[in-house]
This record gives sequence, structure tokens and C-alpha cells, in this order.
Amino acid sequence: MLKLFYTPNTCALASHIILEDVGAAYETVRIDFRREEQRKPEYLAVNPKGRVPALVTERGVLTETPAILVFLAQLFPAARLAPIDDPFAFAEMQSFNSYLCSTVHVAHAHRMRGYRWADDPAALQAMQRKVPQSVGDAFALIEQGILRGPWVMGEAYTICDPYLFTLAQWLEADGVDLARLPRVLAHRERMAARDAVKRAVAMELDPKT
Amino acid sequence: MLKLFYTPNTCALASHIILEDVGAAYETVRIDFRREEQRKPEYLAVNPKGRVPALVTERGVLTETPAILVFLAQLFPAARLAPIDDPFAFAEMQSFNSYLCSTVHVAHAHRMRGYRWADDPAALQAMQRKVPQSVGDAFALIEQGILRGPWVMGEAYTICDPYLFTLAQWLEADGVDLARLPRVLAHRERMAARDAVKRAVAMELDPKT
Repeated sequence: MLKLFYTPNTCALASHIILEDVGAAYETVRIDFRREEQRKPEYLAVNPKGRVPALVTERGVLTETPAILVFLAQLFPAARLAPIDDPFAFAEMQSFNSYLCSTVHVAHAHRMRGYRWADDPAALQAMQRKVPQSVGDAFALIEQGILRGPWVMGEAYTICDPYLFTLAQWLEADGVDLARLPRVLAHRERMAARDAVKRAVAMELDPKT
Repeated sequence: MLKLFYTPNTCALASHIILEDVGAAYETVRIDFRREEQRKPEYLAVNPKGRVPALVTERGVLTETPAILVFLAQLFPAARLAPIDDPFAFAEMQSFNSYLCSTVHVAHAHRMRGYRWADDPAALQAMQRKVPQSVGDAFALIEQGILRGPWVMGEAYTICDPYLFTLAQWLEADGVDLARLPRVLAHRERMAARDAVKRAVAMELDPKT
């Protein structure tokens, strides 16, 4: 059975939603960042990166959200969540997810995890000050160009949608001017109304899971 | 015909090498960062992100290295550069490329492009000071775990290899302690000996191209 290691309020939510979307049999393991469980030997044996998500499969552990999302789309082809047989359409989808992981999520990470890139406390504060702009600009590019509507890739719901939804959870805390992003916010509301999203969010909020 | 927009000494080299590996018919357009051509309207019409690489195809423009690499592997299946029909093996490959774009390349970018995440000159200097450690740690994880040898994924040369080679070009300038990375350096030498790599590197060094 698939097993997802996750932490609430992280990008692991995207994989969690897709597991619900495809109707997979899976279990979850919560990693508590406040207790630094992600840096303990037990978890580093699962994922030496000390990050979430990690998906345990019968053939081994997978990490990195864009890889996990495509894997689940391939494992459950009936859900039709990625156009793998159309190289150009698949590449557009991959391009979007790659932008989320390497630009959007990275801009956001400078608010809470600036210590990855500098040690000086004043530098960490300087990074935090720029997050509203850098995250806002990254989302503006999605708002004005990439997001086709109603879903990211257009009429078809794909693995891009829960990933965008997940990162869009952080817009308010990142101090982004929401007035710039009406289409992103409409997408977020559209996602929040889906049953699979409600189930994944509820599980992550439940302290017993 | 495929057209690659690139700048020498950037991650565009990975896509350039794969174009040579597969024997594609393609042309190149050099974008000069010193003249800030990446921010001019002509190029923003191609890639609104103002980054390289961008690959123009008959169906539209693709950006983001992990997406372009898989696209080329799918377009030229005879080259067998990605195990697309094996979801787990494909996900392992995607996971590696995702780690390169979201962690390794991002750590490196804090040396020259810290202005993306902070405005204060002292903060930019603080970021630069940490690059030898953050890039070194990211490569150490590859050295000690992910890189199987002789190629990233083991016996089969894949799209992961030119991407790792490309980012490994910057180790010296990033101030990384090379003694930590003997296997990464051996991989870099193995790559440098390949004809496709030599051709792509030579083209990018030639000021006429």
C-alpha cells in the first residue's frame, strides 16, 4: 500500500489531494516539524533530504512533488490527470509544476526558511521583507498568462491544480496583495469546493491522523 | 524546426546537450545577459519569465529545463533517454531533475542573483557567503546517495546526466570543496568526454553562434 509522509501546511498537500482524487488505497504518516521529526534518524532513513512529502511505494521511496504527482497520474491512468501520451501537452504541464517548485515555492520559502541560504539575522529579515513582492510577482505571471481556466491547463483538471491550490494557501501569510490575483483566487475557491480536496484538508487538520 | 534560446554558462546547456544527443534538427538563438536581452520586449514575447532556456516547437514555446528534457526524450524515443513507460523509474528520474531545479540550482543562484529574494546589499553578501556550504551540501546528497554510477540512474544514460553536468560546471566558482565530491567530478569528466557534450559546449563558446 502507498504511504505518504506529510506535514500539515506544506506542499505535501498536493500529493495528498491527488491520492484522494484517484481513489488510491494509502496510509499517511504525519511528520511534526515543531518536534523536528524531519531531521531524526527514523525519517532520514526514509528521506535523506529531511523534507516532505515522501511517498513509499512497493518499489521504493519517491520524493519531490512534481515527480510524485506524475507517478500517481501514471499509476491511476483512468483518472486522466496528466496527458502523458501527448508530449507537448505533457511538457506544458511539467513546465507549470517545475515553475511552482523552483520559483513560486522557493520565493515563499524565504519567509520562514531563509536560513537555508544565509546565516545573518539581518539577511533573514531582508529576505522576509521581499516575500510579498517576489511571491506576488511569481503568482502574477500565473494569473496573467499560464492559468487558462477553469483549471490550470484549461478544461481538463490535472495534477497542476492541487499543486497550485496548495501553494496558494500561503498567499495571505506571505503578505501578497490579493487584488493582483483574482483568477488565482477563483481557482482556489473552485478547488476548495471539490470533495477530494475537502477530504485531504480535513485529514491534515485532524490531530489524530 | 526546434529553436533553442540559450545563454552560455546557464542551465540551458542541459537542453542543448540533449538536442545533440538525439540528433535533432534545431537552431539556436543566443540571449546576451550582459545586454539584458532577456528583459527586452522581443524576448519577453517568447518567454515572459525573462529566463533561459526556451524551446520553440511547432506547437508553441516550452520553458523550464525538467519539462524540456522530458519533451525531447519523448520526441526522440529511439534515443531512449527516459524510461517513460516505467512509472517508478520515470519518477526517480523526475525526482532527480526536480531536486536539481528546486534545490541545487536555487542554492547556486544565491551567489549571483540574490536580488531575486532581497534588496539589502548586506543581505546579498550574506547569501554569497553561504553558497559554498549550501551548494556543497546539496551536491553531497547526490554524491552519497542518488548518483548510482556510471550515470546518474545507473547503467543507462538519461536526461539526468547533462543536467547534473551543467550544474556541476559551477562548483569551482561557487567555492565548493571539491574533495567532498569525487563521484560527481568523475561523472563530470565522463560527460565531458562525450561527443554530444563537446559539440554543445563548443557551440556555446563560439561567439559567432
